[in-house]
Amino acid sequence: MKIITFGEVMLRLSPPGVGRFVQTDSLSMHFGGTEANVAVSLAQFGLQAAHVTRFPDHALGRSAAGYLRKYSVDTQHIQYGDGRLGLYFLETGAGSRASQIIYDRVDSAFSRIKADTIDWESVLTGADWFHWTGITPALSQGAADCLLAGIQTANRLGVPVSADIVYRSNLWQYGRRPQEIMPALTEGCTLVLGSKGLFSELYDVVGSTFQESGRALMKRFPNVRYITDTKRTSVSASHNRLGAKLFDGESVYKSRVYDIQPITDRIGTGDAYMAGLIYGLLTFNDLQRAVEFGAAASALKHTIPGDVNLATVAEVETLANGDSSGKLKR
Amino acid sequence: MKIITFGEVMLRLSPPGVGRFVQTDSLSMHFGGTEANVAVSLAQFGLQAAHVTRFPDHALGRSAAGYLRKYSVDTQHIQYGDGRLGLYFLETGAGSRASQIIYDRVDSAFSRIKADTIDWESVLTGADWFHWTGITPALSQGAADCLLAGIQTANRLGVPVSADIVYRSNLWQYGRRPQEIMPALTEGCTLVLGSKGLFSELYDVVGSTFQESGRALMKRFPNVRYITDTKRTSVSASHNRLGAKLFDGESVYKSRVYDIQPITDRIGTGDAYMAGLIYGLLTFNDLQRAVEFGAAASALKHTIPGDVNLATVAEVETLANGDSSGKLKR
Amino acid sequence: MKIITFGEVMLRLSPPGVGRFVQTDSLSMHFGGTEANVAVSLAQFGLQAAHVTRFPDHALGRSAAGYLRKYSVDTQHIQYGDGRLGLYFLETGAGSRASQIIYDRVDSAFSRIKADTIDWESVLTGADWFHWTGITPALSQGAADCLLAGIQTANRLGVPVSADIVYRSNLWQYGRRPQEIMPALTEGCTLVLGSKGLFSELYDVVGSTFQESGRALMKRFPNVRYITDTKRTSVSASHNRLGAKLFDGESVYKSRVYDIQPITDRIGTGDAYMAGLIYGLLTFNDLQRAVEFGAAASALKHTIPGDVNLATVAEVETLANGDSSGKLKR
Amino acid sequence: MKIITFGEVMLRLSPPGVGRFVQTDSLSMHFGGTEANVAVSLAQFGLQAAHVTRFPDHALGRSAAGYLRKYSVDTQHIQYGDGRLGLYFLETGAGSRASQIIYDRVDSAFSRIKADTIDWESVLTGADWFHWTGITPALSQGAADCLLAGIQTANRLGVPVSADIVYRSNLWQYGRRPQEIMPALTEGCTLVLGSKGLFSELYDVVGSTFQESGRALMKRFPNVRYITDTKRTSVSASHNRLGAKLFDGESVYKSRVYDIQPITDRIGTGDAYMAGLIYGLLTFNDLQRAVEFGAAASALKHTIPGDVNLATVAEVETLANGDSSGKLKR
Amino acid sequence: MKIITFGEVMLRLSPPGVGRFVQTDSLSMHFGGTEANVAVSLAQFGLQAAHVTRFPDHALGRSAAGYLRKYSVDTQHIQYGDGRLGLYFLETGAGSRASQIIYDRVDSAFSRIKADTIDWESVLTGADWFHWTGITPALSQGAADCLLAGIQTANRLGVPVSADIVYRSNLWQYGRRPQEIMPALTEGCTLVLGSKGLFSELYDVVGSTFQESGRALMKRFPNVRYITDTKRTSVSASHNRLGAKLFDGESVYKSRVYDIQPITDRIGTGDAYMAGLIYGLLTFNDLQRAVEFGAAASALKHTIPGDVNLATVAEVETLANGDSSGKLKR
Amino acid sequence: MKIITFGEVMLRLSPPGVGRFVQTDSLSMHFGGTEANVAVSLAQFGLQAAHVTRFPDHALGRSAAGYLRKYSVDTQHIQYGDGRLGLYFLETGAGSRASQIIYDRVDSAFSRIKADTIDWESVLTGADWFHWTGITPALSQGAADCLLAGIQTANRLGVPVSADIVYRSNLWQYGRRPQEIMPALTEGCTLVLGSKGLFSELYDVVGSTFQESGRALMKRFPNVRYITDTKRTSVSASHNRLGAKLFDGESVYKSRVYDIQPITDRIGTGDAYMAGLIYGLLTFNDLQRAVEFGAAASALKHTIPGDVNLATVAEVETLANGDSSGKLKR
Repeated sequence: MKIITFGEVMLRLSPPGVGRFVQTDSLSMHFGGTEANVAVSLAQFGLQAAHVTRFPDHALGRSAAGYLRKYSVDTQHIQYGDGRLGLYFLETGAGSRASQIIYDRVDSAFSRIKADTIDWESVLTGADWFHWTGITPALSQGAADCLLAGIQTANRLGVPVSADIVYRSNLWQYGRRPQEIMPALTEGCTLVLGSKGLFSELYDVVGSTFQESGRALMKRFPNVRYITDTKRTSVSASHNRLGAKLFDGESVYKSRVYDIQPITDRIGTGDAYMAGLIYGLLTFNDLQRAVEFGAAASALKHTIPGDVNLATVAEVETLANGDSSGKLKR
Repeated sequence: MKIITFGEVMLRLSPPGVGRFVQTDSLSMHFGGTEANVAVSLAQFGLQAAHVTRFPDHALGRSAAGYLRKYSVDTQHIQYGDGRLGLYFLETGAGSRASQIIYDRVDSAFSRIKADTIDWESVLTGADWFHWTGITPALSQGAADCLLAGIQTANRLGVPVSADIVYRSNLWQYGRRPQEIMPALTEGCTLVLGSKGLFSELYDVVGSTFQESGRALMKRFPNVRYITDTKRTSVSASHNRLGAKLFDGESVYKSRVYDIQPITDRIGTGDAYMAGLIYGLLTFNDLQRAVEFGAAASALKHTIPGDVNLATVAEVETLANGDSSGKLKR
Repeated sequence: MKIITFGEVMLRLSPPGVGRFVQTDSLSMHFGGTEANVAVSLAQFGLQAAHVTRFPDHALGRSAAGYLRKYSVDTQHIQYGDGRLGLYFLETGAGSRASQIIYDRVDSAFSRIKADTIDWESVLTGADWFHWTGITPALSQGAADCLLAGIQTANRLGVPVSADIVYRSNLWQYGRRPQEIMPALTEGCTLVLGSKGLFSELYDVVGSTFQESGRALMKRFPNVRYITDTKRTSVSASHNRLGAKLFDGESVYKSRVYDIQPITDRIGTGDAYMAGLIYGLLTFNDLQRAVEFGAAASALKHTIPGDVNLATVAEVETLANGDSSGKLKR
Repeated sequence: MKIITFGEVMLRLSPPGVGRFVQTDSLSMHFGGTEANVAVSLAQFGLQAAHVTRFPDHALGRSAAGYLRKYSVDTQHIQYGDGRLGLYFLETGAGSRASQIIYDRVDSAFSRIKADTIDWESVLTGADWFHWTGITPALSQGAADCLLAGIQTANRLGVPVSADIVYRSNLWQYGRRPQEIMPALTEGCTLVLGSKGLFSELYDVVGSTFQESGRALMKRFPNVRYITDTKRTSVSASHNRLGAKLFDGESVYKSRVYDIQPITDRIGTGDAYMAGLIYGLLTFNDLQRAVEFGAAASALKHTIPGDVNLATVAEVETLANGDSSGKLKR
Repeated sequence: MKIITFGEVMLRLSPPGVGRFVQTDSLSMHFGGTEANVAVSLAQFGLQAAHVTRFPDHALGRSAAGYLRKYSVDTQHIQYGDGRLGLYFLETGAGSRASQIIYDRVDSAFSRIKADTIDWESVLTGADWFHWTGITPALSQGAADCLLAGIQTANRLGVPVSADIVYRSNLWQYGRRPQEIMPALTEGCTLVLGSKGLFSELYDVVGSTFQESGRALMKRFPNVRYITDTKRTSVSASHNRLGAKLFDGESVYKSRVYDIQPITDRIGTGDAYMAGLIYGLLTFNDLQRAVEFGAAASALKHTIPGDVNLATVAEVETLANGDSSGKLKR
Repeated sequence: MKIITFGEVMLRLSPPGVGRFVQTDSLSMHFGGTEANVAVSLAQFGLQAAHVTRFPDHALGRSAAGYLRKYSVDTQHIQYGDGRLGLYFLETGAGSRASQIIYDRVDSAFSRIKADTIDWESVLTGADWFHWTGITPALSQGAADCLLAGIQTANRLGVPVSADIVYRSNLWQYGRRPQEIMPALTEGCTLVLGSKGLFSELYDVVGSTFQESGRALMKRFPNVRYITDTKRTSVSASHNRLGAKLFDGESVYKSRVYDIQPITDRIGTGDAYMAGLIYGLLTFNDLQRAVEFGAAASALKHTIPGDVNLATVAEVETLANGDSSGKLKR
């Protein structure tokens, strides 16, 4: 099984523990990006995963690629060139104090990507899945164009496509609105992660329930076979509740709800869900089991520092099967 | 708005995390002192704050002043001279294991302060508030004398005065009892933080409720307009509940009660309340809002390492307004 | 009061915080071993404790002995020679992610011990207690032989003997089954820590309740006067509930049940119970108080990093007496 | 004595010790900028120093200002607004392996400064010195314009101006050449740090020796009274030799040459020289002593981590007077 | 260009800085092994390098492979199974205090390798070079057998073979002497790294000079075309001198001699030489240049923490061309 | 062989690496004191060493004792009571920047010792050596009295006594001059470490050379059999030269001179010499060998972090025999 993901990878810099930015004189490093996080997680599950991106051609860009390779992600399709390495600064909250992110990704090497920077034909041939998110088309026209080329190639080669259609309004700075860009990209998707609010905002697709809204989306985009979403209740920065649901046009499959406490690292938990769900869809012939696997993967990610989910299939299955006791394994 | 605080600043040394003293071979440094903590917090709220103290004239004394300046506290009135830098060693507990403090403040540069060491006239001219605590008069006759001079100058200049009348019996080593010293100091106060037990012990002022006891105190000290106190329930070293109340001679204003879990750092949470209340009194024309702001400030301080509250007005207001969800801010 | 313990001491290596093995580039060091943990804890309680073991004759073996000495354990009977220092790698879990141990103790200097390596006569003369566990006879024939010699010497000298009969099936690699080895060792015991499941498996001693099973064990091994066990409910890796009970052939004494949250370090909490119970039996003339002391000691250990319990008698008693508030001690 | 400096301040991020970028998972933080480094150093020498710059209005920009305040630099004239915080990544070399810098300062808040962002009249009134460098006009037209306004104001107010005319070709990206911009800025200077090669390249001012070239520069820019330069021999990344010279139009004053080994931190050593020289010119009536003070200050900076020189006057004078023994001070 | 290396990879654990084992409570992790070090270095030079080894099938074994992948080494041929991860503990010396290694590699997963564990045909097809060292045949009969199979396959496929014939007497524990094993392995080599003392001890090949001894070795093993060796003078643990020479049967090519001070990490410097030489032989048609490249690579490795050389071709060439100034690169 | 040492032990707190006090937010901990340093070193050499001191009865005082025990020093004679733990803050210099110490030892538990606090009879019975220094009588009358009692007991029991008569003028604060106190203490000594300048200042004993001055001291104090001193040339804080000499009333024995570079830790190097010399005198029947052993021990100490010398006899002998190559030991 071979999965291709596409998107920006950033260097994350955060004060150790739960100290504030102004208190620290050192920053912990992780690398991450919503799509690459999916690739890393799938590689931990034992699948082949290749991430496609563009890095600056200097020691930090090379380090970012090394980080992906360490976690078994294939980096052979990564391009190197001009531009910055995207960064984000994360201050981790606790209790009633929220975590805070300062993004610093303007003019990144990835945002300078062009429609033809990637040889999609060679990248996608032999692939079993292609995954993208709504962050990429928000970054630049080139990124949107390159992504569209990828989706179209995947469609032509018969590779299923998934999208997390996340919308961050402050990202869309290059003069286009998501409503102009997202529909053509969503067109080619098999699986879409998003809420009914987002479906309405981006595609003007309306429904009063997850199910109805999903059915409407499937009507608008006939390629879409699965719609999924997570539901999070934030009790505090250290305590969340999380569940997921999956709709196949007929039934809604709901995962159990996890009470997550304490939270070690909140970042990348949605990506962990997506990776778990993709794994489930590719591996199990059982939608209920797939959504449970995704939700358990996401719950486990909350206990792991960094952006990427380093849980194994065995660990996810233990939790998905209801054992959350955390008993010491010798 | 300009606030003056007066008191000793100590170097705090603590094992990283929740390790015991005997386990560590490095100590984390913070600086703090109950009055300076109030100054730092008010400076984070955007007010002008100047701290008055006396440090040893060596690199560590200079570092302590630098620490205050970093957090926007004006250090121009600080004196340097002989004596030690006061220290305290803090072992942070967890769950059912209590935190422990070993004080090491004997013969500090601050305790060698004299009645005339500070030019109070110049310090307090133009000030909007003056804050002191019961720690200072406990340290030495000189400190008590100098403080009295400050309070009297503030009174003469019409600067409101607040006091946290905290009483630590093991500090009073210079031959006087607090009952001999505290009344003259309290005489000049507008706002007093203390419990009815303390009012009885220090001033022989008795009342069966917070309200009655407060009324009696106001009778004894007619300058006092506000009496306040916090109420803490300690479930464990990692889990507390906290609320506050304020009495203006007529009504009692009670804050909501915060369930605080996990606790990152318990030190300075009372000072954070005091700073929040002072900010509220100086800024809002609304006693309920002031006590809510103070309680929320204190709750947030529990999530921040070190002695000082580094929360902003916006963060405190979010919590005071009831949002304790700790949701990630991008 | 002088207690002798006997068993392997390992170097524990763990990623800082709750990071995974693959994420770390440094490992925190602790030393520990189930029997030595008991010795360290008893030494913190102010008793004399000597640990008997065998280390490799190199800097790390010497460091292990230094670690014990630092915590007031007498190391004069420790032998040095060929073989490795046993290691274990610990990844600390959080929430629903379990902690994991990779043991690396094959061919340790301790496992090369022989029946006559230790001069038990000189070690045990004047001792008030001897403690061993089921780990030792699992490691090698030599270790089992040497232990038997120790128990028999203790019996001859009238030194009470306690055993934690813990059974780890993957350890028994030298060709003997525990059923062949354990009965002769248990024969000489005064106090046994174990469950009725274990009594059945190791000694074919059956009973439908703790009490009945205990009575049956006492029949089989007439030296045994006390049987004890702990009961743990694992809510998550960060949250456990724990209680203990003690049977003296007549009554069952049950401790209160502790709700332990958060858990700093789960390792060695059983040893902390054993040490607490031994302290109680040696010091109090009150079985209920002894089992309460043991359970409180174990609860406190969960808050202390490393394998060994560094709580003092005063701390344990505070908790055993019902104060779990964790209030700051100045 | 009050000195004003103007320029960008960056966050420096570097792997601990001498590890390579690809090896680290944490980065040490310092803040620095060639002009701010001069301000910090002068503040350590006991003079009043204020730095003028523009920071992004977020926690990291605020932290940068706090860093300057800690080291006694006045930050009241700093502006906050849009744009990034400039960064640079530093890998520290050793022996024959060179240190490497990856700059990441594009589109910084400082580079977005405009001609009228700073109220120079109010900033420079009462100042005794104004210092700038060739980095600032390289960053943007706005920065060059704002600097020119500053220099002209200083000239009008009779405040002496110094410049380190450092030229980094890769910085000039906004469409102007330094030859178009630098002469007008240099026009207003009293003291210029630069080499004859640079004088020739930037101003087409030629001379075969430092003295001749200096004389020609003074002819071209009649305000210039002093010309200075340092001479560094790089034996290895850990071992340099350094001396300085100063020309006043008549004589050349040469410092002693320092053999610097080992080098703790090479960054900011030129700025330390400039600060030392400015201190000397403002304080001593002796050009030889001034250049010696500058060179000794620079030599000491090599032993101090970070961009800024934290040496005191007493330390610099000890070295300037020939005592390089480094004997322990108790 | 594709290079295959074969050998054990160990986890190295060392106290931070130059502290002694007994002083530390944390250990820094690196992975390394003489042959894998060569692979990593060649991968940094931009060649394709694959390392062949056998790891335990647990998180630490997987981490070791991740470490190699991060540094661009192909890990697809690595086997996983039973046995330990080999370890070594390194205490880094300074000045006149020597570094010390405690090896802990007994019974490693690698030493359990068998003659047929590796499918050499598939590994070596398409390869341009195969490298081994004298450590591997010292570990076990299986390792020696498997290596012999590899060398013979390489010979059959026409892949050049290099060997560092390092002899560590304390490793040969499985009942064979190196004189029985090494000749058959050396038989298939093109390039041999060793001293004339070693040639005499292992092969009974004698010569009074490097040249004569080399000629005699070539006579004994006609496949050998190149003989090489390094010469190190140890002034102290922090200061070495190093040069290298290469003999092609006709001429001796000598590198310049490097004065290396300070030494950051002495481990793997011989492997860095070997990698540099192999790179030179594969890339340059110039033996003098090849040996200079190797020696410069080795000199640079002394400045890099860990076992592997992370220098680039550009860095090595700068040094090989005589620039050892270590000047800051911006 | 059993050696008794007597004196204050302090907690040393220092910024990591060579950073300045003002830059750090954590402090590394070591414990040390000139006499205890001698005890630790002798314990590493395999002799029995017991240190006598008085600590505050709290966790830090207990930790200090644990530190000594870890390094095999007998702590059974240590007293616990009121008073502080003496501290000193150390900033480690580099190159031309000197290390700096801020002492903070006023009113320590040790300085509160009384003449009869120690039961010298029981401490010294069976001892082979007693060591003290000029620090102890400088701290308080009680310390001087207690020391005198110890020396007199040693003399009565026939235990040889050594003294490092170090004089620190700023310590003598209790109203007595060293000239009043030191002679009676020196009276009982067998071995004295000091310079002729010190002999003149303290005892009014004059001689123009080390030999003459020594002879005069022996005349004044007939018990003295050996006089010794070290000679240090401080090239920089990172580079010293060191030699030692010993006079037995007839001949002067001079050690070789060590060129020490780089210096890891300068503290305790004189104590390391003293320990080495005592070891030599107790073990070798050869004064030349003894002084060489002492000087080599001192040279090695410069490479070891902390106050105490952790070198073994084998390491010292290697260096004393002329091998300073620092070659890696496997």
